[in-house]
Amino acid sequence: MVKKITFVRMAGNSMGKLFRLSTFGESHGKAIGGIVDGCPSGLTLDLDAVQGELDRRKPGQSELTTPRKESDRVEFLSGIKDGVTLGTPIGFVLYNEDTRSKDYRSLEKIYRPSHADYTYDKKYGLRDHRGGGRASARETANWVVGGAIARQLLSHQGVRIQAFVSQIGSNVLSKPYAQLNLDQVDQFPTRCPDAEVSAKMQAEIEAARDAGDSLGGVVTLLVTGLPVGWGEPVFEKLHAILGQALFSINASKGVEFGSGFSAASMRGSEHNDAFVSHEGKVKTSSNHSGGVQGGLSNGADLLARVAFKPTASIKKQQQTVDDQGQSQTLQIDGRHDPCVVPRAVPIVEAMAALVLADFSLMARTNKLEI
Amino acid sequence: MVKKITFVRMAGNSMGKLFRLSTFGESHGKAIGGIVDGCPSGLTLDLDAVQGELDRRKPGQSELTTPRKESDRVEFLSGIKDGVTLGTPIGFVLYNEDTRSKDYRSLEKIYRPSHADYTYDKKYGLRDHRGGGRASARETANWVVGGAIARQLLSHQGVRIQAFVSQIGSNVLSKPYAQLNLDQVDQFPTRCPDAEVSAKMQAEIEAARDAGDSLGGVVTLLVTGLPVGWGEPVFEKLHAILGQALFSINASKGVEFGSGFSAASMRGSEHNDAFVSHEGKVKTSSNHSGGVQGGLSNGADLLARVAFKPTASIKKQQQTVDDQGQSQTLQIDGRHDPCVVPRAVPIVEAMAALVLADFSLMARTNKLEI
Amino acid sequence: MVKKITFVRMAGNSMGKLFRLSTFGESHGKAIGGIVDGCPSGLTLDLDAVQGELDRRKPGQSELTTPRKESDRVEFLSGIKDGVTLGTPIGFVLYNEDTRSKDYRSLEKIYRPSHADYTYDKKYGLRDHRGGGRASARETANWVVGGAIARQLLSHQGVRIQAFVSQIGSNVLSKPYAQLNLDQVDQFPTRCPDAEVSAKMQAEIEAARDAGDSLGGVVTLLVTGLPVGWGEPVFEKLHAILGQALFSINASKGVEFGSGFSAASMRGSEHNDAFVSHEGKVKTSSNHSGGVQGGLSNGADLLARVAFKPTASIKKQQQTVDDQGQSQTLQIDGRHDPCVVPRAVPIVEAMAALVLADFSLMARTNKLEI
Amino acid sequence: MVKKITFVRMAGNSMGKLFRLSTFGESHGKAIGGIVDGCPSGLTLDLDAVQGELDRRKPGQSELTTPRKESDRVEFLSGIKDGVTLGTPIGFVLYNEDTRSKDYRSLEKIYRPSHADYTYDKKYGLRDHRGGGRASARETANWVVGGAIARQLLSHQGVRIQAFVSQIGSNVLSKPYAQLNLDQVDQFPTRCPDAEVSAKMQAEIEAARDAGDSLGGVVTLLVTGLPVGWGEPVFEKLHAILGQALFSINASKGVEFGSGFSAASMRGSEHNDAFVSHEGKVKTSSNHSGGVQGGLSNGADLLARVAFKPTASIKKQQQTVDDQGQSQTLQIDGRHDPCVVPRAVPIVEAMAALVLADFSLMARTNKLEI
Repeated sequence: MVKKITFVRMAGNSMGKLFRLSTFGESHGKAIGGIVDGCPSGLTLDLDAVQGELDRRKPGQSELTTPRKESDRVEFLSGIKDGVTLGTPIGFVLYNEDTRSKDYRSLEKIYRPSHADYTYDKKYGLRDHRGGGRASARETANWVVGGAIARQLLSHQGVRIQAFVSQIGSNVLSKPYAQLNLDQVDQFPTRCPDAEVSAKMQAEIEAARDAGDSLGGVVTLLVTGLPVGWGEPVFEKLHAILGQALFSINASKGVEFGSGFSAASMRGSEHNDAFVSHEGKVKTSSNHSGGVQGGLSNGADLLARVAFKPTASIKKQQQTVDDQGQSQTLQIDGRHDPCVVPRAVPIVEAMAALVLADFSLMARTNKLEI
Repeated sequence: MVKKITFVRMAGNSMGKLFRLSTFGESHGKAIGGIVDGCPSGLTLDLDAVQGELDRRKPGQSELTTPRKESDRVEFLSGIKDGVTLGTPIGFVLYNEDTRSKDYRSLEKIYRPSHADYTYDKKYGLRDHRGGGRASARETANWVVGGAIARQLLSHQGVRIQAFVSQIGSNVLSKPYAQLNLDQVDQFPTRCPDAEVSAKMQAEIEAARDAGDSLGGVVTLLVTGLPVGWGEPVFEKLHAILGQALFSINASKGVEFGSGFSAASMRGSEHNDAFVSHEGKVKTSSNHSGGVQGGLSNGADLLARVAFKPTASIKKQQQTVDDQGQSQTLQIDGRHDPCVVPRAVPIVEAMAALVLADFSLMARTNKLEI
Repeated sequence: MVKKITFVRMAGNSMGKLFRLSTFGESHGKAIGGIVDGCPSGLTLDLDAVQGELDRRKPGQSELTTPRKESDRVEFLSGIKDGVTLGTPIGFVLYNEDTRSKDYRSLEKIYRPSHADYTYDKKYGLRDHRGGGRASARETANWVVGGAIARQLLSHQGVRIQAFVSQIGSNVLSKPYAQLNLDQVDQFPTRCPDAEVSAKMQAEIEAARDAGDSLGGVVTLLVTGLPVGWGEPVFEKLHAILGQALFSINASKGVEFGSGFSAASMRGSEHNDAFVSHEGKVKTSSNHSGGVQGGLSNGADLLARVAFKPTASIKKQQQTVDDQGQSQTLQIDGRHDPCVVPRAVPIVEAMAALVLADFSLMARTNKLEI
Repeated sequence: MVKKITFVRMAGNSMGKLFRLSTFGESHGKAIGGIVDGCPSGLTLDLDAVQGELDRRKPGQSELTTPRKESDRVEFLSGIKDGVTLGTPIGFVLYNEDTRSKDYRSLEKIYRPSHADYTYDKKYGLRDHRGGGRASARETANWVVGGAIARQLLSHQGVRIQAFVSQIGSNVLSKPYAQLNLDQVDQFPTRCPDAEVSAKMQAEIEAARDAGDSLGGVVTLLVTGLPVGWGEPVFEKLHAILGQALFSINASKGVEFGSGFSAASMRGSEHNDAFVSHEGKVKTSSNHSGGVQGGLSNGADLLARVAFKPTASIKKQQQTVDDQGQSQTLQIDGRHDPCVVPRAVPIVEAMAALVLADFSLMARTNKLEI
């Protein structure tokens, strides 16, 4: 008698159209990596800067993050010669290290609340090592590599991408970004560029950590130097594709642009960004649009905010079920961040860079000179 | 001497992978329409229900909306025989009527604040008739047709999609959705299914209208009956693709799932949705996840909120510039909605249906039985 | 008890990446049509020329083709204003006429040999009206519309596409194309631009028709004026994508470029196209490459040949089976072409134009000037 | 003054829709490799068989091929655990060795006839190391890895893919494939499974080699065990996509299915494959269709033939030009195959396997059971 086998496949491992990132790798497998396809040639890449972005993302940077150590060295295999891109696909790999798989052994049959355990198990019929390995935030290291290349392509076009933490728990940074020194973001372990607010955030993170608990927060994304007209009308609006990319980041629960949810309680006369003539150029007197009108960049600063839920892995005892549907009490002992929001900053930047690099190429396909 | 011609093209007129909608049409051209590609065969379509969805979207439904009349009759050209889908592409068309183009003549050279005029002009080098015609919300009628078909495909799978208005201006509906009668949504001109709140919203809309102003608001989306496991990990998470679709809707500024932005100030022990065993099935005791975990549906109700800015077209006098960069005072006289949020309800539902129908097919490609 | 329903869907109704054609329509439904997406703006379209291409394809042109009459009037619904493209999607429709469905009634349960009946029935579980309607060569009218627009875009870039019949049955046109007057192709009912060979072909077609039989043939495709470098290396080589398009044409069995199958018996020293300096430009002294080297156009004339099998619908009595697997004798009485090869000429040109227009846009995305 | 920089990008480095191969790597860079995305889980992979396919492709197998040595060891980085696929992307890498770049130094400024040198140079503005590196047939090693995985997925479904050499130079294998022992293909250095013909081919190859010349040939592809209905109508017909894949193989000039070009001179009554009832199953009495009808597999053996031109790299002196357009005499000394056709056999099989694996998944998306 032949046993019927159900094979299961996973889709959605690529992003972008013309500037495209495809990735592979499980968190506890041999390596993760990917291919950046469509990067133009002749771009002198600062490979140290790429590694620098990875270092910003990696765990163990401060006492606020998980002590799990990953050297996260990226190795480029193709597409770059003597530091210059060739226009061909850029293959890269990051070998995995320090994968204490046994830490996870106790979780083999128990669903961690608000994790991907249950949904992956139901969808793929297998557990953690497989899907779970792919659901891990370790995958975001691949994004940071791709994003770091995209960022350098954009910087040649005058586009600068910066993100910072604007809320952790109950601490909200209310200063307008124009009053912040965004060059100092990385000098704060919280990545909130305001000494006073950052100190309060740090205290709340430490308190949560000591209580075996975790915190959420908000990352603000600022893109300056965008030309007018990036984005595509109808189904590929600039903020729609950016929204998709930002919602792809683990633990994100909300995305807003410009006025965002506060627009709901405003009147049109208050919300509309009046056009003014400024030194021969058209500007807007306010920026409730957040840099996007009709789905296209309007030349103003692009502003977005991404809300992150508190880390699902907490040390506090929790009620849950196992894969037989039996009630279980769960106590997680692994090495986890009490607050991932500071580490999300380079990831938000990477996703924005990948989307914008793609649109920068797409914008050129729109024009055909004969 | 040869004059160099710059041609300009537009991209992004399709959505979906397996269940795919491609659209065409300018608001003041001959017709709009599209193709629904990938709809399975054998589906008995209630064509009156498709028309019914269009009627829910069309202008002139109540005194709260623009008096512009559009009969919005959809004509199906292929893919359906005797009311049953053939599995082949479904072509459809909606001829345009009552297009008072002269209403727009005064706007030919002036940029309306917070409209797509300026960005389209800069990107495409031409004005309104071209890009503007495509930027019009008239395009959403195409989405409603596609969404109405998608909705019927989903209903066979037990999936039900409902949306309602939960905020207009300063009026917020705070009741949990379980306490609302969602079958009555369309009985309120505001589409807010709470008599008291709806009355206040209506009053505020009328006040704004009388002041020549406009209002924003929030639409809440509820999807029930989703199986576990729809969505694709990494770059095509269920809420990421849904986020893209919802941000595609004209005037949307923010999208959140489940706890959304409020998650930023919660602790993990409070936010985590504990698993409980309920009549032999695994459930969660809360739903901060909003029905999505790890990018996949978890079987709970899917909950999203979409923030809309106030209509940009207001009668109040505004400061702006013309296409020569000269300051101008603008007074718009056309026929415009003081608040589009009630009419956004069927559009939000349509976009959700299109995304979910696509995932319903995608979910089947993951399993290969041999 | 719930009956399990199997829905069936059809994929693959679009072609192209940046210049994209999506089509719909069954041969005996209400209409066929499509969307040309990605056509640049500002292109003055000769709409009579589009209709002219349709007229070249349509049945009933001469005594050599089926007497089925189709007026094949294309109606444009969007994307064109005052004869100029807007850059937005071009929607179009061709209403069906003279669809004598009863002609087909006798075939309802019988598989016509070498037709799509059997494979469609097995795949889709339904018959003719559904899949069969979509398998009909009537669909190629949509391609001709898209191709006619593509051709006009290409002609602005100096690219000219011409095809002609080079074989029908046993009659082979052996003159090199440089000795033919390709402007006269349409003056011959066979579309073979050599009076002597054409007359023999015509005689063989008439003999086949009188015998209730059919004939195959070869169409030669010539593209002149191609710049160097169209095509993409690796998986999207110019001739690979062109090959896919030409194999999409109903009844095509073989495609070759340049030397084609004769290359198999040549030596490298004989086959290699030596580079020569000609009036300051690099040329090749021969063109065995057929205009493509390394998957990219090399500036020489692109030459391809497409083999078509004899029409499967013949009046001669044939052995076959019905949908119960029972042996049947089949006698087809409908109106069919004894040889479709002359009518394939505008279709071959249309497919080539669609592919090349796409590559003409793609070629521009490769260059990013900063 | 700012120097204008032109960046150049390459597209088309992926193939497939659901079963997808993306590749990277230059022939003289650090490594080549790729990602197989969409392979279902639970497939026990014979990794030795994957390596075995690579060994069949690699140079230096016999005195008939180039003496360039490449160990061609594939290293898998993800997607496989304990020899079983996980359903996640399979990343793999092949490090380059023995890259005698100096062999190529003399070619730096000279265009080799019928190579990609000239077209790449014109398109990308750079030379060999960049584009040329990507144009190298070394890339096909990546395809063989992907194809070997695809082949194992197909073998579970009863599909078997075999190719063999049916012509080299003037030597044509005329026996029907049913009379050949295809299990012995690899026992002949020519991969022509007929001792007598193979010996003649070998003699002709040796003669060409000794004359500093090269030979072309034909590879026949046979696929058995295909179910009815793989392929998609209209633009993604089974043989159209297969045609694209086969034309992607370096040096291929022609592709035909079933009767191929010989169909042009046949009559319908002769060419039509009559349906017969055979042991309760529907079969065809002949197979001029080559296993494909209406773009869908019909359950008969799929038969294709691919023509390859003679290797462009020959030792014989040739006329050409350099990158300044100056006439040059070229004498190539590197290590090249006098006839690549035997080594093309595993590549043809790999491309067929990749296409068919994709269609095997696609076929399942067509059916939706509710």
